[in-house]
Amino acid sequence: MADPADLHVADLHPAVDDPTLNSMNFLNEVAQHYPEAVSLAAGRPYEEFFDVAAPHRHLETFRRHLVDDLGQSPTQVHRTLFQYGRTKGIVHHLVARHLVVDEGVTVDPEAIVVTVGCQEAMFLVLRALRADPRDVLLALAPTYVGLTGAARLLDLPVLPVAGGPAGVDLADLREQVRRARSAGLRPRACYVMPDFANPSGVSMGLADRRRLLDLAAEEDLLLLEDNPYGLFPAGDAGRLPTLKALDTARRVVYLGSFAKTVLPGARVGYVVADQRVAGADGSVSLLADQLARIKSMVTVNTSAIAQAVIGGALLAHGCSLVAATVRERAAYARNLRHLLDGLARRFPADTSPVRWKAPAGGFFVVVTVPFTVDDVLLHRSAREYGLLWTPMAHFYDGTAPVDALRLSVSAVTPEQIDLGLDRLVALVADETARRAASTGVR
Amino acid sequence: MADPADLHVADLHPAVDDPTLNSMNFLNEVAQHYPEAVSLAAGRPYEEFFDVAAPHRHLETFRRHLVDDLGQSPTQVHRTLFQYGRTKGIVHHLVARHLVVDEGVTVDPEAIVVTVGCQEAMFLVLRALRADPRDVLLALAPTYVGLTGAARLLDLPVLPVAGGPAGVDLADLREQVRRARSAGLRPRACYVMPDFANPSGVSMGLADRRRLLDLAAEEDLLLLEDNPYGLFPAGDAGRLPTLKALDTARRVVYLGSFAKTVLPGARVGYVVADQRVAGADGSVSLLADQLARIKSMVTVNTSAIAQAVIGGALLAHGCSLVAATVRERAAYARNLRHLLDGLARRFPADTSPVRWKAPAGGFFVVVTVPFTVDDVLLHRSAREYGLLWTPMAHFYDGTAPVDALRLSVSAVTPEQIDLGLDRLVALVADETARRAASTGVR
Repeated sequence: MADPADLHVADLHPAVDDPTLNSMNFLNEVAQHYPEAVSLAAGRPYEEFFDVAAPHRHLETFRRHLVDDLGQSPTQVHRTLFQYGRTKGIVHHLVARHLVVDEGVTVDPEAIVVTVGCQEAMFLVLRALRADPRDVLLALAPTYVGLTGAARLLDLPVLPVAGGPAGVDLADLREQVRRARSAGLRPRACYVMPDFANPSGVSMGLADRRRLLDLAAEEDLLLLEDNPYGLFPAGDAGRLPTLKALDTARRVVYLGSFAKTVLPGARVGYVVADQRVAGADGSVSLLADQLARIKSMVTVNTSAIAQAVIGGALLAHGCSLVAATVRERAAYARNLRHLLDGLARRFPADTSPVRWKAPAGGFFVVVTVPFTVDDVLLHRSAREYGLLWTPMAHFYDGTAPVDALRLSVSAVTPEQIDLGLDRLVALVADETARRAASTGVR
Repeated sequence: MADPADLHVADLHPAVDDPTLNSMNFLNEVAQHYPEAVSLAAGRPYEEFFDVAAPHRHLETFRRHLVDDLGQSPTQVHRTLFQYGRTKGIVHHLVARHLVVDEGVTVDPEAIVVTVGCQEAMFLVLRALRADPRDVLLALAPTYVGLTGAARLLDLPVLPVAGGPAGVDLADLREQVRRARSAGLRPRACYVMPDFANPSGVSMGLADRRRLLDLAAEEDLLLLEDNPYGLFPAGDAGRLPTLKALDTARRVVYLGSFAKTVLPGARVGYVVADQRVAGADGSVSLLADQLARIKSMVTVNTSAIAQAVIGGALLAHGCSLVAATVRERAAYARNLRHLLDGLARRFPADTSPVRWKAPAGGFFVVVTVPFTVDDVLLHRSAREYGLLWTPMAHFYDGTAPVDALRLSVSAVTPEQIDLGLDRLVALVADETARRAASTGVR
């Protein structure tokens, strides 16, 4: 054949050519292209405490749990670890225990679906909720790209809701719901990350959490609560109750991840979906069971080996991830303080136009600069300054210019933070001068 | 609230109420409800050789491979095993070597995407190919329910093509393609399982494989080749080349599974997608890269821990699964012979109306009986006879009565096969008498 192509992108699902999916790709490629650059871009967990013996230890702990606590015979143990297994997972009871111990949330283990990372949990929930073309999802902006990407794959429009300095603009949320309904659309849920959000770093206050739940009830809306960073408060203020902990009317579908608290390499997350679903025949099931049906046709079940590693890690600390992540929490808090102190020293409020809001925990700080931050600038930052960060534009729909970047403190040392910030100072100074010069010329 | 329901099935994606997804569920529930019954239903792999030490050994083998063969430092090893990783996987080079060694197929490792079992591979391919509502998939009937279920989740209609005794009715395939096109539809691909198919047990001959490839080229159709059972021939005839081995024009997307050859508990499969995809900007990429973009929003990447277990198992046998599965192959061949001999002894051709076609390998035998086989009969078989099997109706679209059942030999002993067949004799005799009596009454 003279034509070297077998297929054309235009004949594939439009998501493959969508800016959201390309953005993920682009950011990974930049990082791979400049391996020597200091990366304040990656939201990966800290690597210093990784231990090559840990998976072996956790596997063995979970195996003993099957024998000692669940009374499984050797044949049953083999079957649990090696065979096809329960669609909703084999560590659901331990996840439920963790939720009691660490979050004060009591849920029926049957309402939990263990998933291939939190990404699959989001995907399953969106697949279930997107029933027809009128359905739309609301999401607080700026929004995690994994959520937007999953929605794109399912042809589910995402309507942005203003996040603002408090993490949620309730008036705008109500307005967006009403506007969507007037346009004949069905807002199915609103996606929120109330604790140390990615990318904004912002946390919702307790009063706003309660108001958000009230609004969800009034507007008959589900809330999809994503909580990957909640265990990492940095200051003395500590942690606030999750929406799920405050939820008395099953308004909240809770999305959980073990990537940041145990290890990403297991790819284990979960969803708590205790909503009651009425069938046409009058039967009532849990939303978790409907999600499991979908999961059986996406990944069948989550790797039992991977689940066993997570299960063992949970068992090693009485199912408390607060207890399991003491070292990690201290490292993230130290790094966040180091970054915030370093920013304050390098960009004094009285002389510098650079601004940021100090988050109370988590991995991310958003820095606003006096110029547009785009992919071209990221390339130059990597090439000329040896510094990687994430343009905030990737977390917004549309093409409006954004003058902010996201810095991450999770996978670096204090020394790398200092080096990175010194480079950021140089970049900001040069870029400000360049823009001033180019404005002056006109 | 007086209303106990938070949601209604009618407001969820229609797939959750689809017979295909319910069928999976139903079959699992029947099996759980009658744990004491002999199960000739489950297509699970043989459990006798499962070894609780194996995951530890494989993990360590793969770790040594990272150090010794790939020259990774301790930090890099940690990152490979524990961090977020390459979307297309970390054992792609070993999968490529396996394909050379066992299948005589040489592919660029970059054209391989390692997936969460073969199910995710199917799901990603169908998501990529389903670009608009005119798109349809062809599939040889009877069809594996996992394929039909994934298609349902993506609103992709599946048009059945006659399989027939040769595994594929080429005239019907051509007819279905043309009929679909006349109706304004776009047949994107045809799903086939050429070796010891699930559920039919049938294998395509070599001449038919070549003819199928020619037809695919003439009709500009992709072939989705699913090959979970190919390594398990039962007789002296051995194995035939896969479609991918015969494919000189990148017509075949090859779907692979390690569930039957290593272990299901890892949930690792893969897809070979070496098709060249032209972008609107003139760029050319591999279909594998487009699938990876989709995967990044479904599961991010396949568990590195699970991949390491599979990687170690491959390395332990020079990447030959033919070498790794000597014991399993012998067990399946022994069981299949035992089942076929047992059927012949119990249902002599000259006196019994029960019929079957002896497969040349794999896990499954389809048995035709002189009455309709439905879910009600399965329940009675489990309850009154202590025997589980799979009604063939589950593998066909529509509600036409089917007079056949699928027996599986993969997860049982010869003794259980004997016991199961004795019970099948009783069921068939009683059911034949019952139907005769009920016909006589009319």
